[in-house]
Amino acid sequence: MIIVIQCKDQVGLVAAISSVLAREGLNIVSLREHVDKTDNRFFMRVHVEQEAESDLLYKKLQEVLPPEAGISVNPLPEKKLVVMVTKEYHCLGDILIRNHFKTLGAAVQCVIGNHATLQNICQRFDIPFYEVPGEDDKTAFEGKIIDIVKKYNPDYIVLAKFMRILSPSFLTHFPGTIINIHHSFLPAFAGASPYKQAYERGVKMIGATAHFVTDQLDEGPIIAQQIIPVNHSHTAIDMMKAGKEIETAVLARALRLVFDDRVFVYKNKTVVFE
Amino acid sequence: MIIVIQCKDQVGLVAAISSVLAREGLNIVSLREHVDKTDNRFFMRVHVEQEAESDLLYKKLQEVLPPEAGISVNPLPEKKLVVMVTKEYHCLGDILIRNHFKTLGAAVQCVIGNHATLQNICQRFDIPFYEVPGEDDKTAFEGKIIDIVKKYNPDYIVLAKFMRILSPSFLTHFPGTIINIHHSFLPAFAGASPYKQAYERGVKMIGATAHFVTDQLDEGPIIAQQIIPVNHSHTAIDMMKAGKEIETAVLARALRLVFDDRVFVYKNKTVVFE
Amino acid sequence: MIIVIQCKDQVGLVAAISSVLAREGLNIVSLREHVDKTDNRFFMRVHVEQEAESDLLYKKLQEVLPPEAGISVNPLPEKKLVVMVTKEYHCLGDILIRNHFKTLGAAVQCVIGNHATLQNICQRFDIPFYEVPGEDDKTAFEGKIIDIVKKYNPDYIVLAKFMRILSPSFLTHFPGTIINIHHSFLPAFAGASPYKQAYERGVKMIGATAHFVTDQLDEGPIIAQQIIPVNHSHTAIDMMKAGKEIETAVLARALRLVFDDRVFVYKNKTVVFE
Amino acid sequence: MIIVIQCKDQVGLVAAISSVLAREGLNIVSLREHVDKTDNRFFMRVHVEQEAESDLLYKKLQEVLPPEAGISVNPLPEKKLVVMVTKEYHCLGDILIRNHFKTLGAAVQCVIGNHATLQNICQRFDIPFYEVPGEDDKTAFEGKIIDIVKKYNPDYIVLAKFMRILSPSFLTHFPGTIINIHHSFLPAFAGASPYKQAYERGVKMIGATAHFVTDQLDEGPIIAQQIIPVNHSHTAIDMMKAGKEIETAVLARALRLVFDDRVFVYKNKTVVFE
Repeated sequence: MIIVIQCKDQVGLVAAISSVLAREGLNIVSLREHVDKTDNRFFMRVHVEQEAESDLLYKKLQEVLPPEAGISVNPLPEKKLVVMVTKEYHCLGDILIRNHFKTLGAAVQCVIGNHATLQNICQRFDIPFYEVPGEDDKTAFEGKIIDIVKKYNPDYIVLAKFMRILSPSFLTHFPGTIINIHHSFLPAFAGASPYKQAYERGVKMIGATAHFVTDQLDEGPIIAQQIIPVNHSHTAIDMMKAGKEIETAVLARALRLVFDDRVFVYKNKTVVFE
Repeated sequence: MIIVIQCKDQVGLVAAISSVLAREGLNIVSLREHVDKTDNRFFMRVHVEQEAESDLLYKKLQEVLPPEAGISVNPLPEKKLVVMVTKEYHCLGDILIRNHFKTLGAAVQCVIGNHATLQNICQRFDIPFYEVPGEDDKTAFEGKIIDIVKKYNPDYIVLAKFMRILSPSFLTHFPGTIINIHHSFLPAFAGASPYKQAYERGVKMIGATAHFVTDQLDEGPIIAQQIIPVNHSHTAIDMMKAGKEIETAVLARALRLVFDDRVFVYKNKTVVFE
Repeated sequence: MIIVIQCKDQVGLVAAISSVLAREGLNIVSLREHVDKTDNRFFMRVHVEQEAESDLLYKKLQEVLPPEAGISVNPLPEKKLVVMVTKEYHCLGDILIRNHFKTLGAAVQCVIGNHATLQNICQRFDIPFYEVPGEDDKTAFEGKIIDIVKKYNPDYIVLAKFMRILSPSFLTHFPGTIINIHHSFLPAFAGASPYKQAYERGVKMIGATAHFVTDQLDEGPIIAQQIIPVNHSHTAIDMMKAGKEIETAVLARALRLVFDDRVFVYKNKTVVFE
Repeated sequence: MIIVIQCKDQVGLVAAISSVLAREGLNIVSLREHVDKTDNRFFMRVHVEQEAESDLLYKKLQEVLPPEAGISVNPLPEKKLVVMVTKEYHCLGDILIRNHFKTLGAAVQCVIGNHATLQNICQRFDIPFYEVPGEDDKTAFEGKIIDIVKKYNPDYIVLAKFMRILSPSFLTHFPGTIINIHHSFLPAFAGASPYKQAYERGVKMIGATAHFVTDQLDEGPIIAQQIIPVNHSHTAIDMMKAGKEIETAVLARALRLVFDDRVFVYKNKTVVFE
């Protein structure tokens, strides 16, 4: 059973929480606690050996914690996921394979694409695919997507190479649940054509960044980053190909961390208990 | 202030410990706890914001913990270190530079060499150097080293490319305090000439391993490991050169972890709270 | 156009080869040459800008090279591949996705499994799957596989977590064409249960090795190796899961190198021009 | 013997060059050639087994190459180096240790600091140290440095954490010879306080970049880059400490590549034959 707690820091929080667990006869197998001194914010993830009645434990923890505390007891073992894509297959393919073999840690409910390119691969895995062509009317475009997503009520939305920028208005419908894979080692090469930029600058490494989406383009809380070496023999195209490998890997890692309840978001940063 | 505790696991340990700290008004900035279920062993490292009277806190923690518990409150901010070498300079050089600029996290008391090769570099840093030539009589050889080490009463002994095997009898004088850097990614290529072995096998990566020394050659608890890529263009000599880089880096990292009280040893493994 | 050459070394080989190319008006965009001094062996890979008539160029190169020279001009742009599996899906899944989107650099002809577990995923991609149950009679078992493979006449056979050991007799049918992914950083933990061994040894990194198969179990020429960090919190099961990630990645990388004609085999080693 | 050549590309260059070497009876042990198609530029590095008379060979190569070709035959086995520093010791310490044990691949002639902080460590290694305090008059300040550097006529100047920006006028005195270590993964966090920027952005990796210095601040040709993971537990100070490790490592690697004649500069990029 996993318990995650986030609240304002104060002396005695660990004692209060762990005493509740001890009184319930629960043994703590693994505990990570971190206080962000800049923000005076407390983050904790506890893994206990036994199973307990979630609602009751939640209530007992609530009693000893500040009212604003975010508490999650025994988070759903399997999250629900909606994936949004454009034309590139690499991240979606990896997600579909893991989903099919039940090792993703979440269940893909449907895939939404602004092109039909990836419909066929979804069908092969019996995953519903919705084509929502990007139209001139962005409000209408996003409205259709919102309707589809709400039907599935997912815990998370993954932008697996979805190449359209979502409006702040869209984001307000799904606060804190949208994860994006950005094709560069942010904050380097934010915006479009990062591989072209990287090629022209002659960098020796390219990277990818998985982050939560906020209304600041490419500025949301970073979950995970990774890099791979490149050299003079890589054209911009070669860098893009190499980049796809690292995009796939870093998104898979970020999703694993999030689905395993290891990621806390506060302000524009994450606390990740790996 | 850092508090580290190791003991047999039981329900309520975190509550008991953190309650002691809370009663003293100490705020936990960072906490790592891990239970090894195979051995039913409890490991915890706590970083508290304030300073408290160490002896008193130690006593109060002792009261709530099993008698066999290993408790360390506010470990000495600077450990004392003896370094043992043969002829290779790379690890010693790195240690001497860090020691000189007070960023090693420990104070080098002296260097003992079975060759005079590295005497000069020690003198340049005003560090006492003892040459103890390896003789036919191993007991006499080790006896001389034991005498020197005991004079300095170090917290740790670092074998920074000391190329002689120490006898079990030597080790009993300094249990759990000797750290070695092994020139391979253990357990691959244990024993002598790992780079020659690696070259002949045509591996694509070579590594280095920092570990505590036990009477099983190259079999002690591993603290840290790292690797670097090699390829067909590397001769055995080139691999050895590349290996020196990684040996230096991995030993530096292992020492930082140990001196920062992040490493617990139990049986033949380590728990490392990075 | 890619030209690869391997032969006994002698003075003037680069001049002879590049003069042939220059006389044909071919411009060398990229050239890698390596001589293994231990074996006095010459390896070269040339990438020329233009296309030329392969057979003619082959003949002209043959005229200036020693008779035993291995010469390959303009290797088939797409290799043919047979994949052999048991029950684990991760390597096969990655191969099938890449194959489906035509980015594997080879075309999967069929998959052979000694269990039916992975039949379904192959069907979803319209790839023929043959179940050949492992029987007591190894000769019969291997005979059936040989018959199937020969029908497809593949350039390479990939053992993508095929958990049976192939007999030397089997190997003689497909010399130099079988690629295996081994679940450890060879030569550490050769043989069965590497993750259990790794857990018990308390290593801080686990790896995977892609290699050509020879009749020496786990001793064939290494193509690529990679590692990932692990720690005390990983059980043997966790290590196995983490290992699957790196197995998938290193096999993908090895296949890309092989299919891109960057890998030469000589004796028990590879020359890899990355 | 190492031969490096850079010139405009044309058909037949490899044939012309290798024919000259073959006629001299020189055996090519290793050859790397690359053509930058964007710039139609030819780069080649040849390692031949035997020693030959450099001047004669240079002349013979000149005869078969375009007049503008940059040719270097048997580059000086040991480059001469001037190091410039401010207060941070980590890069200088590493350079001094390697220099002392003759494994730097270059000989440090002197160290110039705009503070006296690192004078003592230079004295311990018998390396001349010049303190040139940064004054209001930048022209005078740089003039003094120019005078000192010119006295030693170095092949390369290394800015080993020299924290003042050099004027374009300064750079014209030493074109293409100044190497800087920048404390970020360029182009992310160019300019001052990269670690503070990195902390505030919440990145999960920090890096360092070794590059040639041009009159565009932090925009010169990149030689090498490396990164290390960081997380929520790192303060800006911790990131700076971690950064020093990677700065030291990446500068050491860049210098090794440059001193080993593996780095070509053209326009604002490098070709690195590792």
